[in-house]
Amino acid sequence: MIRVGIAGASGYSGAELIRYLCSHPEVELGVLAAGTQQGRCLGDSFPQFRRIVERQLEEADWRRLGAESDVVFLALPHGFSMDAVPELLDGGARVVDIGADFRLRDADLYRATYGEQHRAVDLLGEAVYGLVEAKRSEIRGARLVANPGCYPTAALLPLLPVLPCCEASRIRVIVDAKSGVSGAGRGATLGTHFGEVNENLRPYKIGAHRHMPEIEQAAAAARPETSVFFSPHLVPMTRGLLATCYLVGDGLPGRREVEAALGRAYTEEPFVRLLGGDDLPETKATYGSNYCDIAVRVDAERGCLVLLSAIDNLGKGAAGQAVQNMNVLCGLDEIAGLLQVPLFP
Amino acid sequence: MIRVGIAGASGYSGAELIRYLCSHPEVELGVLAAGTQQGRCLGDSFPQFRRIVERQLEEADWRRLGAESDVVFLALPHGFSMDAVPELLDGGARVVDIGADFRLRDADLYRATYGEQHRAVDLLGEAVYGLVEAKRSEIRGARLVANPGCYPTAALLPLLPVLPCCEASRIRVIVDAKSGVSGAGRGATLGTHFGEVNENLRPYKIGAHRHMPEIEQAAAAARPETSVFFSPHLVPMTRGLLATCYLVGDGLPGRREVEAALGRAYTEEPFVRLLGGDDLPETKATYGSNYCDIAVRVDAERGCLVLLSAIDNLGKGAAGQAVQNMNVLCGLDEIAGLLQVPLFP
Amino acid sequence: MIRVGIAGASGYSGAELIRYLCSHPEVELGVLAAGTQQGRCLGDSFPQFRRIVERQLEEADWRRLGAESDVVFLALPHGFSMDAVPELLDGGARVVDIGADFRLRDADLYRATYGEQHRAVDLLGEAVYGLVEAKRSEIRGARLVANPGCYPTAALLPLLPVLPCCEASRIRVIVDAKSGVSGAGRGATLGTHFGEVNENLRPYKIGAHRHMPEIEQAAAAARPETSVFFSPHLVPMTRGLLATCYLVGDGLPGRREVEAALGRAYTEEPFVRLLGGDDLPETKATYGSNYCDIAVRVDAERGCLVLLSAIDNLGKGAAGQAVQNMNVLCGLDEIAGLLQVPLFP
Amino acid sequence: MIRVGIAGASGYSGAELIRYLCSHPEVELGVLAAGTQQGRCLGDSFPQFRRIVERQLEEADWRRLGAESDVVFLALPHGFSMDAVPELLDGGARVVDIGADFRLRDADLYRATYGEQHRAVDLLGEAVYGLVEAKRSEIRGARLVANPGCYPTAALLPLLPVLPCCEASRIRVIVDAKSGVSGAGRGATLGTHFGEVNENLRPYKIGAHRHMPEIEQAAAAARPETSVFFSPHLVPMTRGLLATCYLVGDGLPGRREVEAALGRAYTEEPFVRLLGGDDLPETKATYGSNYCDIAVRVDAERGCLVLLSAIDNLGKGAAGQAVQNMNVLCGLDEIAGLLQVPLFP
Repeated sequence: MIRVGIAGASGYSGAELIRYLCSHPEVELGVLAAGTQQGRCLGDSFPQFRRIVERQLEEADWRRLGAESDVVFLALPHGFSMDAVPELLDGGARVVDIGADFRLRDADLYRATYGEQHRAVDLLGEAVYGLVEAKRSEIRGARLVANPGCYPTAALLPLLPVLPCCEASRIRVIVDAKSGVSGAGRGATLGTHFGEVNENLRPYKIGAHRHMPEIEQAAAAARPETSVFFSPHLVPMTRGLLATCYLVGDGLPGRREVEAALGRAYTEEPFVRLLGGDDLPETKATYGSNYCDIAVRVDAERGCLVLLSAIDNLGKGAAGQAVQNMNVLCGLDEIAGLLQVPLFP
Repeated sequence: MIRVGIAGASGYSGAELIRYLCSHPEVELGVLAAGTQQGRCLGDSFPQFRRIVERQLEEADWRRLGAESDVVFLALPHGFSMDAVPELLDGGARVVDIGADFRLRDADLYRATYGEQHRAVDLLGEAVYGLVEAKRSEIRGARLVANPGCYPTAALLPLLPVLPCCEASRIRVIVDAKSGVSGAGRGATLGTHFGEVNENLRPYKIGAHRHMPEIEQAAAAARPETSVFFSPHLVPMTRGLLATCYLVGDGLPGRREVEAALGRAYTEEPFVRLLGGDDLPETKATYGSNYCDIAVRVDAERGCLVLLSAIDNLGKGAAGQAVQNMNVLCGLDEIAGLLQVPLFP
Repeated sequence: MIRVGIAGASGYSGAELIRYLCSHPEVELGVLAAGTQQGRCLGDSFPQFRRIVERQLEEADWRRLGAESDVVFLALPHGFSMDAVPELLDGGARVVDIGADFRLRDADLYRATYGEQHRAVDLLGEAVYGLVEAKRSEIRGARLVANPGCYPTAALLPLLPVLPCCEASRIRVIVDAKSGVSGAGRGATLGTHFGEVNENLRPYKIGAHRHMPEIEQAAAAARPETSVFFSPHLVPMTRGLLATCYLVGDGLPGRREVEAALGRAYTEEPFVRLLGGDDLPETKATYGSNYCDIAVRVDAERGCLVLLSAIDNLGKGAAGQAVQNMNVLCGLDEIAGLLQVPLFP
Repeated sequence: MIRVGIAGASGYSGAELIRYLCSHPEVELGVLAAGTQQGRCLGDSFPQFRRIVERQLEEADWRRLGAESDVVFLALPHGFSMDAVPELLDGGARVVDIGADFRLRDADLYRATYGEQHRAVDLLGEAVYGLVEAKRSEIRGARLVANPGCYPTAALLPLLPVLPCCEASRIRVIVDAKSGVSGAGRGATLGTHFGEVNENLRPYKIGAHRHMPEIEQAAAAARPETSVFFSPHLVPMTRGLLATCYLVGDGLPGRREVEAALGRAYTEEPFVRLLGGDDLPETKATYGSNYCDIAVRVDAERGCLVLLSAIDNLGKGAAGQAVQNMNVLCGLDEIAGLLQVPLFP
């Protein structure tokens, strides 16, 4: 049994992690740490866990978490993990960081993006970017995995195998993404107030979101000098994230060629589902699960190749992918704990 | 392995059954029959099943279903099961009927309620009303179980243990219930159109809903001459059902006494969670699961005892309870396939 | 022209007031005061007003508000109005208080309900409870009107004409009410977070809500010794409030008699719509308006008389009724500014 | 007084027209025709109109409608108007067609797009495309106005003044649009079922929607040889439409230049609101109104100019714009009947 600790258990990603881990046959829940609700029962903070996970939320003591856990999940706002990880690694634990601190490999880019100096620069090189389908072999045996952001996950899964097909063409890439509100976390703000979100659709941080450099870092690795313009939108739903990715330019590959590239990449992947024919992804088809659905459209005349992908932002976009990372990291069956059928309707 | 057939697999309850059964360790999915989408792949009708359950929807051939299944689930509109059940039983299958045909024991009441003559009257006596917590011993070994309606489930779970405590008092019972829209099924009607339901709250069939006699039948068995007034309301959400049950009169038992009665009934039950202190049920705490949460309030001065209960109308209110019935029926572990943690948020 | 000042213009009720007043032919918007967003443009706080009402939010200076306004609307949390009103009246303004401070006539009941001593006890007798349909003649010419709460408005409009019909019978009254989230105001709390509200239905403060004594005060005036048990529920929608009111007991009047009583009370009323036949109120039919829809059902056998009423909690439940009160107070046409057709879908 | 007839009064656009016209000072409602609910009271079909518009829905008799109306609004599915308009014009009425039949000027393109032969080809040249801000002078005095589609309205208002600024550059245009469900009309289909739409986000007809040629026709008039790729998405909300328009290429104008072009076009326009600074459009800010909010972002490095616009699809996207067209057509005050402040929250 793998002993797992969680920091950030009072947030949405933390709770979703616990939900996945409850059905994991080889995991034992260790310390559940939370910044704000220490001492409370988990079921008082999240009523779904009543009678099912009867545990107390504890203080985040990195030394103890590191010593008592085989794997620690960090589900914290950016800026916290970089202080915690060195202690956790010293204590002997492996770390899957759902937060943003170890996703960007360049400390300057981190500072420019997150507005503060990185305090664990030496670990940036060691951290593996945990997009499992792209980095599986590097994740195996790693000590520190940076779980990708929800938007980058949805954008990169379709983009990475397709970008190299466009090597000859001069293209520009746009990711127009639409997310449910749980991606903003459980903090009470005017922006997450039901009265402001419901029956409303809001673009935000157009061309200025922190996930843009994260997407570009991985895209440029797949196809040199690729830049990506990123437009996020907030949708009146709790879960679900759809990325509509546009590759714009001349000499685009045809739909068949693109589908073939995706097929080579993903046919054997347990959590990526390629849609053909007239099918298009919809977020509800992945609700509460670790699946990512992908489809392609090409309009050569208008110079537009469209990749569409849907995930649950708390599933493949956060906790589900984190569990998948843990499975790979620890040499477990990669699908263990992740067999939930999406909830529909 | 139990071989299971399903009729009504293209409806919401049918799909939810399949979802539960996917995680059931002792079940093998047999025929998936559907009235309207025969020949289509399940994943074309319900996108969540793509790549997970790759099966075709077939014609409902009762003879074949009965012969090839150990247990058949019927998730059909009322009026269909009474024709199917005799053939299914003849074929050797046991039946869990999620529809309404075998819930009322009195053929006249059935006709008065559903507007047509019952065509399998001889089976009305044999059918067991499958509210597992109340009828477990009768369900064991039964051939035909009538799965309770969603509203009756939510109302009866709190009412049944409490009604006998009010034997001395002269009370009247009101059930004010609020349900998500999936309870109305997947049929496209003006009443289920997003534009009519969203941002709207609608009472309907006040005092005239078909679940009222079903609730009264069970209530009167628990406390003679109890009648129940029933008021359903449609809430702009997909899943979830809350029943606010009022026992109104003099000489009511106190909250402690009521909680003790509920404790005796349910402390050992795996799917009923009693809430104490200031906690109240909320539907999301049971989302996608087979749990029922219950709480009590008593205002002696105003002559009002309130029982509140929350379920997922497709879970404990339909497919979850049906699987629980199958487990009891077949002597399996009662919680097999039903360990889903509710999805929150 | 009536010069109107508003305190609480950065809240939902305040903004809705401004919306109604924009279409009022005899009103001029004066000071818009806000506790938290002073100096900001109204359109920065509420984007609907961009280019339409280009005004700054100002500090709430009661002296100035009183001196410069003919009528002041107070849309403040309880506890604030009782300090402001004396100064406003001294300044010569009339006041419509949308908050709770002057609704209960008994200072002890106020303290028991709101947890603090009332600081303007001498005005409690002068304040008129502004349920226009019941108090029109007292409102005319009054200096201070206490605008009813949203729940009491929805409950009392159907109850007040019907309670006297039950004088002979021994009844108990239950109000089971369901409200959209905007009734909780614009403050960011976990309880109003989209992720907690959406796809969820939550009872709260069952038998313990502050609107219960307010309802009882008016009900007892209509029928001596009437107590009312009150159960509020939070519904995943922004606007809308439905009250399902149960009169439980023997010797109830029949539906025809009840409809006649409602007809006598409301046929001439511009904002109350009585529904007959099979029609039932639904909240969306009153969306964005000052209407209240009412229907009746009686089940003599089960001893249950049901009154159903729907309003927009920000309309007839707050700002709409406040404007109606102002119209009556100032001798204007009662429907001025209130002719909005409900928004559907 | 202008006498107005409406065909399609039992649909969402028809009802919204009636709502706007109720507050129009110079309009008298004439015949309300409906295909399916003839003989019913309007208030039985749409409960918001109870007691407010007490009128019967009648058969659509084009001769009578044309003879008895000064202006006829057609709110019909495509394929109906082309048969009705000749008779209506013959009868002496002017026509504002909210449907699609007269939007495309080329009969072949109509057939390719809508799958049937156009049956009033001779009127295609006379019909004016009723995007008021672009065609005001042509609309004045016209007999037949083709009200733009909801998506084209949201896309073209920002695009038309900006496309000429890009004349020198080689650009491609993508419109990624997100719409509420009421745009699909009131017909009950699986695609508009609450259980399928709620908590779901769905792209549809990517690159194949009928509004794409309509957008391209107008875009090409503003800047020769401009093609537009169009991606619509269905959002779980009733009203609201956001278009995120990407102009992709080199040599793009800067944000200041673009804002200046928009300013020249729209500063004097009553229903277009230009947002500066950090503001971005959100659909709720236009809810229930005829406003269109627009903002700009430019990322020269990534070759991306973004225009964002928000409307209410039933307001500026249908009925509101239709009333604006009628006002211009008849020489009335252009803002008459259209002064609704958007409903927020």
